[in-house]
Amino acid sequence: MSLARVHNLAISLDGYGAGADQSLESPFGHAGMRLMEWFFPTASFQGISGSRERTAIDPATEADDRYAARSLVAVGAEIMGAAKYGPPGWQQDADWQGWWGDEPPFHTPVFVLTHHPRPSLTLGETTFHFMTATPQEALEAARDAAGGLDVRIGGGPTTVNEFLAAGLVDMLHVVQVPILLGRGSQLWAGLEGWERDYSVESETTPSGVTHITFTRTSDAAAR
Amino acid sequence: MSLARVHNLAISLDGYGAGADQSLESPFGHAGMRLMEWFFPTASFQGISGSRERTAIDPATEADDRYAARSLVAVGAEIMGAAKYGPPGWQQDADWQGWWGDEPPFHTPVFVLTHHPRPSLTLGETTFHFMTATPQEALEAARDAAGGLDVRIGGGPTTVNEFLAAGLVDMLHVVQVPILLGRGSQLWAGLEGWERDYSVESETTPSGVTHITFTRTSDAAAR
Repeated sequence: MSLARVHNLAISLDGYGAGADQSLESPFGHAGMRLMEWFFPTASFQGISGSRERTAIDPATEADDRYAARSLVAVGAEIMGAAKYGPPGWQQDADWQGWWGDEPPFHTPVFVLTHHPRPSLTLGETTFHFMTATPQEALEAARDAAGGLDVRIGGGPTTVNEFLAAGLVDMLHVVQVPILLGRGSQLWAGLEGWERDYSVESETTPSGVTHITFTRTSDAAAR
Repeated sequence: MSLARVHNLAISLDGYGAGADQSLESPFGHAGMRLMEWFFPTASFQGISGSRERTAIDPATEADDRYAARSLVAVGAEIMGAAKYGPPGWQQDADWQGWWGDEPPFHTPVFVLTHHPRPSLTLGETTFHFMTATPQEALEAARDAAGGLDVRIGGGPTTVNEFLAAGLVDMLHVVQVPILLGRGSQLWAGLEGWERDYSVESETTPSGVTHITFTRTSDAAAR
């Protein structure tokens, strides 16, 4: 069975997965990079970013890396919202090709949800497809393209919120960072009782974040 | 120095410290008792509640009890909001004496913030004083009564939010329960950047909750 999984979605204590005022210069808006500081020193990120000047990995990051590494396993396609693919207004810029340069870190088909579809774009091992679709339709398309593997719901928080609300997510890994953003994109809006069909595991790590993993119980999956 | 401390304030993942629709039958509203399930089995609660049929303490609750026990140490007065003292409408019931029976668990002066003051009430070792006051004024009154000890800001979440916003809290211990309430009383509203002057420690325990403790840094206290 092909699962729909969310990984490494960092949120503030007050539930924001990105700040307000996102822009080309500030992809996370007024949050800056504070939501991702736990991630950058991990071996997984160092590997993804392919830095030539890779520094020694601090053993204190190992617990965070156990989580970071999972997002790379058995994923055959990704779905992302328009707000992850580019800054506000990218839809009007025909030359915009995402944040990730010539070799994006996905290495799979990526389905970008947008009301302004454009032709598919291949960069390195990643092909971006642009579509106007409901979460259900997008997940179907991604599953068709995933070759039997899982689908990662890549974010941002608004998109993940829609997939959670539609009951489509089998595994949700959030990383809670103990800061208060006050404004931005809310992950938890309108999800009263959502946890009911999930088991949950929490772990704090030396970086100070808390990893919270929801896994759909088999009973719920059988319904 | 007399500190203002918050302890054992349980919140949902989406930041609600109490549910909606609070009433005499449901002090936490639609949340039921789910925010407090980590607390009831602890030795501290068993001691507070003074149950004659005290059951054996499960060693798995020891980590939670380390936190629960701290709330009892060196506190000389408590401040609580009207929503903690009674269900909606208690102000119109001259006979209402709080939820706690003849021997409330406070054993100190308790200052109840209300727009409907009434004469002070002594039950056992606890005296309730009722006052209309700003957070600053209430804290001053409580400190005067605390005999050099600390003041506990006892809740509910709306009252704690007001004290946090006013910059009056030296220590905040929240207990995050991995449920989504969707509605109710928000702890975090309007507190962007509040964490700046605090150090933070997080710990997950076998009960599945995460204890998050903010402590004002000495730099901040000196300002």
